[in-house]
Parts: sequence; structure tokens; C-alpha cells
Amino acid sequence: MYKTIDSRDYHVLHPRPVYLIVSRSKNGSVNVMSASWVSPVSDEPFLVAVSIWKGSLTHQNIRETGEFTVNIPSDKHLNTVYKAGVVSGREVDKISSLGLRLLKSSVIETPGLEDMLGFIECKVVNEVEVGESTLFIAEVKAVHVVEEAYTRYGWDLNKAKILLHHGGRGFTTPSKLILAHR
Amino acid sequence: MYKTIDSRDYHVLHPRPVYLIVSRSKNGSVNVMSASWVSPVSDEPFLVAVSIWKGSLTHQNIRETGEFTVNIPSDKHLNTVYKAGVVSGREVDKISSLGLRLLKSSVIETPGLEDMLGFIECKVVNEVEVGESTLFIAEVKAVHVVEEAYTRYGWDLNKAKILLHHGGRGFTTPSKLILAHR
Repeated sequence: MYKTIDSRDYHVLHPRPVYLIVSRSKNGSVNVMSASWVSPVSDEPFLVAVSIWKGSLTHQNIRETGEFTVNIPSDKHLNTVYKAGVVSGREVDKISSLGLRLLKSSVIETPGLEDMLGFIECKVVNEVEVGESTLFIAEVKAVHVVEEAYTRYGWDLNKAKILLHHGGRGFTTPSKLILAHR
Repeated sequence: MYKTIDSRDYHVLHPRPVYLIVSRSKNGSVNVMSASWVSPVSDEPFLVAVSIWKGSLTHQNIRETGEFTVNIPSDKHLNTVYKAGVVSGREVDKISSLGLRLLKSSVIETPGLEDMLGFIECKVVNEVEVGESTLFIAEVKAVHVVEEAYTRYGWDLNKAKILLHHGGRGFTTPSKLILAHR
């Protein structure tokens, strides 16, 4: 039996993977924020959709350059990811205050982050208004992963403790792999 | 150090929550398919984006009625979710062959599923072409959850073994809650 709850309670679709989005202004300054409202939306071409609040510096940056990287943190980045989501890049240089190191991308001008599980380079191809946010739809131009944590079937769940956001300060990681019957 | 892999390898953004999408044709027939390319995209109003392959019966149904429900399975539905993703509703009545039971929705005409962790009722407000799929953007009209598995902070991870899709037959569930420092 179900109970009907507040129809605005989006936590019903959590926990879900959380990422560090790196963006760059036209002047070259770089910002980082955490985001979990991110999903693949197409495989050929590989497109991702990322929902970004219109008032954020990340939104302004992506509008200016049409680029961003999606960086994949692990459980060791728990506090970094939380802080990157509650502090604004308009007030603090988050890259430096969070002790993050940038890494040159291979295709786009916006950098990725060192020491993550991996990152993907994205170029915006479309954008859609969604309430107080914009849904940026972007083509993935390059994918980089920590080799020893990635197999031909994706992440090795014993090695890649991918961070999932539950709500507020609450996070989790995937447990063991389970296989469906053929 | 990162290794650069195939830029079409979307598994880099998995594991992620997987859902059973129930849709209805204008004639009233009901179909179910699994989908993990689903994300909240706005909180006020609560909007979700769902990527659906254009060739699927679910796509045809959603185009016809502008409605669907997103049903939240647990690890006990592992084989059901896998099968709902590999069999087409054009060949088999999946609701009956998978032994699923429908439940009347409160706001829309398309039903939810009994015996899940919960389900949400959605009405399409926009759609966007994304490669071979359509990204349906829908407003959440009602949210229903199993009361004993849901707290004011979202799912009780000790009770709600939410299913995450890794790739192919591989799935997982969230492990324990971890808290970031304030």
C-alpha cells in the first residue's frame, strides 16, 4: 500500500550519481559546482542533459562558452562535493578553496579535474527552459577514466566507489553487482 | 592518471536508478518498459526528463496520451526490470507476462504498478529531439511511496533497496548512508 506525499518531493528519484561540473567564462575563469540532475539522453551520438539553476555562475559560464566537463567523484570526495554544492563561485574561487587541480581537456577549452574517477568533455547542442533552470543538452566529445577502475562493461564496483547524492548532507555509494537472469 | 576511452561509452554515467515506465495508448492498452535515462530537472514545478527511443511502443503511447507513470522498483524486481527492457510491448503484453498488477492513478488516466517502492504520475509539458530518442519533459502531478520505507529526508536506505542499472544484466543497489561535514 502506498501513501501519497507532497508532489514536489523530488527526493523520491534519489539517490542518484552526483558530479562536479567544471565551467569556464569567456574571460577564462573556471568554476566548479556539484550536480546530480544529469543523465545520458542519447547513445548515438552520446548526449547528456544537465539541469543548471539560472542564477548560478555555472549557468552564466556555460551560456558564454557552450562548454563544460562532467567530473566523476568517488566517496573520498564526499566533503568536496557537498561544499561545491552549497558555496557560490560568485563569492569564492572554489577550485582553489577546495584544493582542486585542473587538467587540460583534449577537445574543448574547459578543463577537467585531476584525481577523480574520470571526466567527460561536453559541448552544448541545445538548451531547454525548465522552471528556474536550463536543461543544457550537450554532446560528449571525449571520455577519460581511471584505467584500473574501468572495465569493458563499465565501472568495476569493487574499485570505483561512485558517489550518489541522497539529499542534503546525505550521500551513498553503489553496493555489489547483482546479475539478472537471461 | 586517466586513460581516454571510446567517447560513446555512456556506461561512464552508470550505475544509475532504473525505473518501470508505464504508458497507455489512446485505445487504453497499457505497456511497461524499463528506463534509467530519467532525471529530475526542476524542483518548482517538479519536472522530470525521460529519454525514450523513438521506435518503442512506449514512445508511441506517450505521444498519444501525453502521460506516463515512473514506477520505482527494488532489488526484488531485478529480473522483471531486465525483461521489461529487452522485450517489446509490440510482441508481448508485458504487464501480464511479467505478472505486474496495475493500480489506478489519482490525477492522470495512466495507471501505476502495485508492489513497487512507489510511483509518480507525470504529464508531458515539452519534448526535445535527442538523436534516435525523444526527451519527454513532464510535470509530476502526484507522488506515492511505501510509507515505511520513506522518511522526511527521502528513502530509508536500510529498507528501500532501490535498483540501479549498471549495464546489460548488471544491476546494484545503494549501500549505507554517509554524511558530509557541515
